Amino acid sequence: MKAMLIKDEKLVLSEVEKPNPQSGEILIKIYAIGLNRADLLQKKGAYPSPKGWPQWPGLEVSGTVEAMGEVAKQKGRFKIGDSVCALLGGGGYAQYVCAPEGMVMPIPENLSFEQAATLPEAYATSYLNLFWEGHLKEGHTAFIPAGASGLASVAIPMAKAFGARVVTSVLSDEIAGKITPLGADVIINSAKQDVSEILKQEELNGTPVNMSMDCLCGETLGKSLPYMAEGGYWVVISTLAGTETSVMLRPLLTKGLHLVGSMLRKRTSEEKALLLAELVEIVWPKIEKGEMKPSIYKVLPLEDANEALDIIERGENIGKIILRVCNE
Amino acid sequence: MKAMLIKDEKLVLSEVEKPNPQSGEILIKIYAIGLNRADLLQKKGAYPSPKGWPQWPGLEVSGTVEAMGEVAKQKGRFKIGDSVCALLGGGGYAQYVCAPEGMVMPIPENLSFEQAATLPEAYATSYLNLFWEGHLKEGHTAFIPAGASGLASVAIPMAKAFGARVVTSVLSDEIAGKITPLGADVIINSAKQDVSEILKQEELNGTPVNMSMDCLCGETLGKSLPYMAEGGYWVVISTLAGTETSVMLRPLLTKGLHLVGSMLRKRTSEEKALLLAELVEIVWPKIEKGEMKPSIYKVLPLEDANEALDIIERGENIGKIILRVCNE
Repeated sequence: MKAMLIKDEKLVLSEVEKPNPQSGEILIKIYAIGLNRADLLQKKGAYPSPKGWPQWPGLEVSGTVEAMGEVAKQKGRFKIGDSVCALLGGGGYAQYVCAPEGMVMPIPENLSFEQAATLPEAYATSYLNLFWEGHLKEGHTAFIPAGASGLASVAIPMAKAFGARVVTSVLSDEIAGKITPLGADVIINSAKQDVSEILKQEELNGTPVNMSMDCLCGETLGKSLPYMAEGGYWVVISTLAGTETSVMLRPLLTKGLHLVGSMLRKRTSEEKALLLAELVEIVWPKIEKGEMKPSIYKVLPLEDANEALDIIERGENIGKIILRVCNE
Repeated sequence: MKAMLIKDEKLVLSEVEKPNPQSGEILIKIYAIGLNRADLLQKKGAYPSPKGWPQWPGLEVSGTVEAMGEVAKQKGRFKIGDSVCALLGGGGYAQYVCAPEGMVMPIPENLSFEQAATLPEAYATSYLNLFWEGHLKEGHTAFIPAGASGLASVAIPMAKAFGARVVTSVLSDEIAGKITPLGADVIINSAKQDVSEILKQEELNGTPVNMSMDCLCGETLGKSLPYMAEGGYWVVISTLAGTETSVMLRPLLTKGLHLVGSMLRKRTSEEKALLLAELVEIVWPKIEKGEMKPSIYKVLPLEDANEALDIIERGENIGKIILRVCNE
């Protein structure tokens, strides 16, 4: 089969052996692949696939069930030919991939393979960090910076669909205009406005931030923490704007705040299976009712993976980029 | 009745009205009072009693049940004359105090009133932060700095009694010698040794810190965080050594660490009642079997409360200071 292997920080279309599913695994014939910033880091050698996964990138795919191991078959959730999507530890940039049965999900009704490929990583990451780590509740205020990122294009509508108020940030008024359809209540232009000052104002207005799912961090984190709501959770999911921050410990103490590091990839297989089961049970119906809609910025063929990751690196995309696999 | 009222940052023996228990409350005739550093802050005006509690200090007492409100009586846990100890929002520096029924506990077998008065605040705080907030498990390593503090005199033996390894810190070799009976596995003399370097060494030795219950904080916190175990919890319970710290966000992220502010006083009555019920069920048997032993530094009469708090302020005490109430 074909796969995009990493050679000298470039992805190269290569011929590799088609994998066979182990007992608990499902072999997926891939139709579409969702791209993530982590793929870019992996291409540059900074974020290797965990043990047991192919060493090429790709954290989420959609496709059909091609074959099943014995235990996976016995679980009875899927049959050959079913349309599925899956969360992977790596190895999605290929024609086929094996995934543990618990990492495979049915596709919500009426979604295309391209749309379904946007779901596993971004929806699991958003759900994990908004609800498990961030304890987001109806009526809470969520701060989800980097509103133009692929992840925010999922996390913002998800938080809204569960009844939260959402504050986000972008780098220009132009981008603010483009992400309006996501439904954030407040869009901060961080080129012109001080994020922590706006969050201070939110507190004064009686809508302090209850949780943040923060991929930027840096000094803004430490400056913003004191304005959180009592018992708030600030979840660090990446550190794109800075790896260090000064934290005022008195507000942390007196407000009972939580500063938490969270990576989906670090979760055990059991935790991931539980998380995905909650996604299917709680979030898929919201997609099927149209309360959340997967948004795609661009679809490119698998062979153009380098170009696709360049788009992410340049920060051009609003929403997810998809690679289409030619399986004929 | 007599109570020690705060006047110009001094405690003054005063005559106040004896309280009557409300429906859900128990009136306790006080025999002994456990002192806490928070009392000192309250005397100085920094830490007022929460709403509904007397404005004089005192977070934990022992004594006997003098009267009960209707609902408290119906709960059936106590009868008039029972020996009890109780966690208070304030108001313990007196001859009588009313406490919600859920904040009152039986006294472990064979303990004196003086010993029982050391239990509620320090044991509840230790249990809350070691187990609820800090997720301490058997075989974990706990870092509990300020080993000579009243709280550490409870928290260290408690962590040991539950099968944890304990690292603590003190300000001199002399004090290190004095706290040896508490059973800590490592006692750092922070006047001579860099705490974060020792914690780094612990990680290299394969026993990284899984949780800290930290009353000191300051820059040592931020310098030590990167050496924690995966998924570790650093619980900030006071900031005696500094209110600000620089946090490295990459180790926080990649190790999935938690930095948490925690104050027992901020917990709801329901949470406190649940916590105290766990104490009685899980910790009291360990005291009764001799696996943990309340330690008292000094007993003084209620009238000497100012002197008693001066001892805490000077950092003289190893273990708890108790005030004895003359009820004749």
